[in-house]
Amino acid sequence: MISEKMHEQVKNSSVIRAMFEEGKRLAGIYGAENVFDFSLGNPNVEPPEEVKKAILEIVNDNDIGIHGYMNNSGYEEVRAAIAKSINDKFGTTITHNSILMTVGAAGGLNVILKTLLNPKDEVITFAPFFGEYRNYVKNFEGELIAVSPNTIDFQPNLKEFKDKITPRTKAVIINSPNNPTGVIYSEETIIKLSEILREKQKEFGTDIYLIADEPYRELAYDQAEVPYLSKYYANTIVGYSYSKSLSLPGERIGYLMISDQAADFENIISAANIANRILGFVNAPALFQRVIVKCLDAKVDLEAYNRNRELLYKELLSYGYQCIKPEGAFYMFVKSPIENDAEFCSLANKKNILIVPGSAFGCPGYVRIAYCVAYETIVKALPGFKALIEELK
Amino acid sequence: MISEKMHEQVKNSSVIRAMFEEGKRLAGIYGAENVFDFSLGNPNVEPPEEVKKAILEIVNDNDIGIHGYMNNSGYEEVRAAIAKSINDKFGTTITHNSILMTVGAAGGLNVILKTLLNPKDEVITFAPFFGEYRNYVKNFEGELIAVSPNTIDFQPNLKEFKDKITPRTKAVIINSPNNPTGVIYSEETIIKLSEILREKQKEFGTDIYLIADEPYRELAYDQAEVPYLSKYYANTIVGYSYSKSLSLPGERIGYLMISDQAADFENIISAANIANRILGFVNAPALFQRVIVKCLDAKVDLEAYNRNRELLYKELLSYGYQCIKPEGAFYMFVKSPIENDAEFCSLANKKNILIVPGSAFGCPGYVRIAYCVAYETIVKALPGFKALIEELK
Repeated sequence: MISEKMHEQVKNSSVIRAMFEEGKRLAGIYGAENVFDFSLGNPNVEPPEEVKKAILEIVNDNDIGIHGYMNNSGYEEVRAAIAKSINDKFGTTITHNSILMTVGAAGGLNVILKTLLNPKDEVITFAPFFGEYRNYVKNFEGELIAVSPNTIDFQPNLKEFKDKITPRTKAVIINSPNNPTGVIYSEETIIKLSEILREKQKEFGTDIYLIADEPYRELAYDQAEVPYLSKYYANTIVGYSYSKSLSLPGERIGYLMISDQAADFENIISAANIANRILGFVNAPALFQRVIVKCLDAKVDLEAYNRNRELLYKELLSYGYQCIKPEGAFYMFVKSPIENDAEFCSLANKKNILIVPGSAFGCPGYVRIAYCVAYETIVKALPGFKALIEELK
Repeated sequence: MISEKMHEQVKNSSVIRAMFEEGKRLAGIYGAENVFDFSLGNPNVEPPEEVKKAILEIVNDNDIGIHGYMNNSGYEEVRAAIAKSINDKFGTTITHNSILMTVGAAGGLNVILKTLLNPKDEVITFAPFFGEYRNYVKNFEGELIAVSPNTIDFQPNLKEFKDKITPRTKAVIINSPNNPTGVIYSEETIIKLSEILREKQKEFGTDIYLIADEPYRELAYDQAEVPYLSKYYANTIVGYSYSKSLSLPGERIGYLMISDQAADFENIISAANIANRILGFVNAPALFQRVIVKCLDAKVDLEAYNRNRELLYKELLSYGYQCIKPEGAFYMFVKSPIENDAEFCSLANKKNILIVPGSAFGCPGYVRIAYCVAYETIVKALPGFKALIEELK
């Protein structure tokens, strides 16, 4: 028999599985090309050509030692190259010591939460948020505290945030560009948020770590700036991933940047190295550590996502939908025309459109559309979106 | 500040780090080629040439979709090919449903323990054992119960095993060929162990899962047979890894085989899929899933390890050391000539020989020599081993 916690998880996952099965059922009836799946954040844009080139170079040029174990934190030269690239971009002065290579950002978040959390410690995040944070925090017996959404512009609700910080608050997770809204937290937001954190650290005599989950950092449109957190707040940890910036989600490659200004820095570094090992990751995949170092200045074709964004945003607005224009990532967070977001998603299914209810992100009354799909898919889905809102008027 | 548990871990790890630092210090003084590092299970034999060929083929022949997300359990065609290969070798009749691709065996063990364990559940293993089992079980608030070693032939002590099974026993981990002894658990052992488990399941009305940790399955010398557990016991789960069979430890690729005869099979499959996701692994690295399928019949050059084994065993015995001849893996577990194994390791350090005390494996009074090193390293270390025991006579 499986554990009680996992029994609960299996029960809850049946909703998602039902949706997945519904998609397969629809594809069976109407053909896969007539089912419009906006439910997953699986990039449709291929990796830049530098990735293939890098793999071939590494494999052809090295006959020994490229698939072996290394230090649990990763190759030192890879970590040094990443540190240098961060320093060049953001004016920081970190060394390889601040970088720990991880099995994607999901691996990195688990490593840092294992490193920091005692049972019952609290981790604050801002709704709407990536639902997995709840699981990651629970993995270490912590409690995820969600600040309710500010649906005006989807910047964090800082007043409520301040009230929710307690002596048990060990960390705050922010995600910008944001999944599911596509909003970038502004520099003003980051400055205020940092001030609140410093004030509360002083009041409670604690350290509160700010964890920036940044898989979408490179996906910012119109040259928008995404503030680098360690410039504003000392106790900063960045969880980065190449899943979206290089379209390598299946390869599980990312890193943690632990600011050298963070309290207890040396112990965090040592503990995160051990956590990477004992959680069973052991180390980030060897070959792709070397690959990403050869691709530090490469990027997926952002314009492909941007075309999708512009088309979808313009059209949905013209049909009467309400939505903030996303500044980054590849998600649009649209107000459900009816109160019940899950019901709206069911109605969308009937038009062969698969989208996810906002409730899954702690923000009912909205739906997430992942537009990391072919342009053609959007074009073909638009009549369905139009009919959907007209039938509800 | 880091968590209390991790603080403990950092403190304990300082012993290993000290050893590592000592190795570096010695290399600095005597030159790396004159320091004989037998402390790590990092294979020195390169992957078979099929690995490079497979990578090049996959990358050259596929322009799209090889680095994306797939089902958390892995590519269905990869899982089906592995299932077929197991069926062909061992006469089983499993399908892809029984296979879940994992981030190495360490990832797989964590996934299955997350799937099965409630807090305070007990997991039994046999000393000497891989020390990480203790951490993996603790990750899910379980308790590792070690059966004391049978130092006559290092087969499991089944009498004590039987006494240690309780209504809280949820799983048993066995590791054969064994790290650190190199012993293969005999078919007779497996039959008796299975009988005991069935008896106890009946007595307590429980399911007890037998987890076979098998990274060394393909490293068996003299055509020795390693029994396939699911043929003897229904509630079997195999954690496999390509780290040693294909010398790919840095790439983190392995799988769980969940016997279709296991109690609660469907729920285990669903829960393990979810556990893979929420622990932050998400999925096993995409490219290497495809690589290993092209290398299912490939194997590292076992003869290289065998030469090491024969030389080291013959020589150590001639100097007066006591040791069981390893039947598999690349470890030799030698009786310490003095009672205190840690002290003996320190004395070995003085001869520039790095080995690990048996205490780290729950078996004090012994030391582990990892002979996955260059033949030349063994040749050059032998005089040190000889002098060491002579000085202690």
